[in-house]
Amino acid sequence: MTQSTQNKVDSKQDLINYLVRLGDDSIVLGHRVSEWVSNGPFLEEDIALGNVALDYIGRARLFYGHAATLSEDGKTEDDFAFLRDEREFENYLINELPRGDFAYTIVRQLLVDLYNKHHLQALKSSTDETLVAIAEKASKETSYHCRRSTSWALRLGDGTQESKRRMQLAVDDIWGYSHELFEVDALEQRLIDAGIAVDCEQLKQQWLADVEEVFEEAGLTIPEATWAVRGGRKGYHTEHLGHLLTQMQFVHRSFPGATW
Amino acid sequence: MTQSTQNKVDSKQDLINYLVRLGDDSIVLGHRVSEWVSNGPFLEEDIALGNVALDYIGRARLFYGHAATLSEDGKTEDDFAFLRDEREFENYLINELPRGDFAYTIVRQLLVDLYNKHHLQALKSSTDETLVAIAEKASKETSYHCRRSTSWALRLGDGTQESKRRMQLAVDDIWGYSHELFEVDALEQRLIDAGIAVDCEQLKQQWLADVEEVFEEAGLTIPEATWAVRGGRKGYHTEHLGHLLTQMQFVHRSFPGATW
Repeated sequence: MTQSTQNKVDSKQDLINYLVRLGDDSIVLGHRVSEWVSNGPFLEEDIALGNVALDYIGRARLFYGHAATLSEDGKTEDDFAFLRDEREFENYLINELPRGDFAYTIVRQLLVDLYNKHHLQALKSSTDETLVAIAEKASKETSYHCRRSTSWALRLGDGTQESKRRMQLAVDDIWGYSHELFEVDALEQRLIDAGIAVDCEQLKQQWLADVEEVFEEAGLTIPEATWAVRGGRKGYHTEHLGHLLTQMQFVHRSFPGATW
Repeated sequence: MTQSTQNKVDSKQDLINYLVRLGDDSIVLGHRVSEWVSNGPFLEEDIALGNVALDYIGRARLFYGHAATLSEDGKTEDDFAFLRDEREFENYLINELPRGDFAYTIVRQLLVDLYNKHHLQALKSSTDETLVAIAEKASKETSYHCRRSTSWALRLGDGTQESKRRMQLAVDDIWGYSHELFEVDALEQRLIDAGIAVDCEQLKQQWLADVEEVFEEAGLTIPEATWAVRGGRKGYHTEHLGHLLTQMQFVHRSFPGATW
């Protein structure tokens, strides 16, 4: 194998790994949001949350599907979603945190939706055409997600004393998980250099400006960054991911290879 | 096949089904109690609950193991525990209810432990020798379980206003699930006629007398029997069993056939 062929192979495996990470982020958050189905605060919101969940799960299928096409060992999107263990998932931790109360879910969505807004915008400039197409589609969904989570954040942050208290509590709880979103490891750096992946570090200021704008109007305060949790991209997870996977993967693991 | 051989085959299958039911009762409750491990109110109680859980899980192994020995299709205790679906489990519903708070757990244990006391006593007169041996062993554990749950019921029922309130709330919630424990279906009736199974209907008065004695001292009230839930022995379950099985069976289903 020549050096250039070897590089090609490595960079293809890098891309597969990157796609699986993005799929992991989407499917894990999609599963969390889906837990609101039949538990929403009222029927319309219940359905809206269901739709958001489906957007995320649909996005996971696109990322995993692209990875499956590139993969030479016949892996399918189902293999990525349902037959990997906790340590093999590389989603950001913020996506796996339990759904909490409605305020908690809204704060998480706000932070992640605004992150996705910038992330997907940058992904449209990838040199990988399929990634560009996924980013185009997902961007449209994300505009709608951002409108939703912004308007809920304003309504609850600037609502009753209790709703404000819960929103700030959620912000204080979740904030330490946001730092990881803007860190780049060696794998992503190689793909950034190749023009494929998004340089997340570059997104932080724009994201922070967006968050600050919403927080100011909603009367919420960004906590001091006294702690940060990281590890998702290395496969080190909170205790919550394992429990999520038992539920998410149970049917597939109970009926291995079943089709319908 | 002669009629008498056919009867023998049927009654053997009846016995297997009965053993699996008893195993289901034990493993499901054992799993519920095990959820207290690392969540107990204090360390000694945490360990005590862990031991109770192990007693129940050990008992499940004995029942399933006996069924596996009788079964001619090579089924193992693991097949019974880990490779059957919700509709195939025939445990009483009281055993699958979520663990609730500590008062809830104590009330359930009290009702079930006192039930087991009489059930196991009667099982010692079975014509099936292995069942007698299991009942002998389990009876000893159950004496200890009854002492524990009785003393906790007295301590909490006759404790603070809050502990009493929680205990009575738990009694009101759980009581409707107790009636099912004393109902006999066709399968069990055949085995009762053969001298193998316990006639649960006959246990109700003794059980009730025991419960009333503890409740009186603990200041707890038996609710009016305005509702009853049944279905466990037919495989109709609450929503909680499916969730329990996803956790209980996940490792086995993830690594099918793995041994260690």
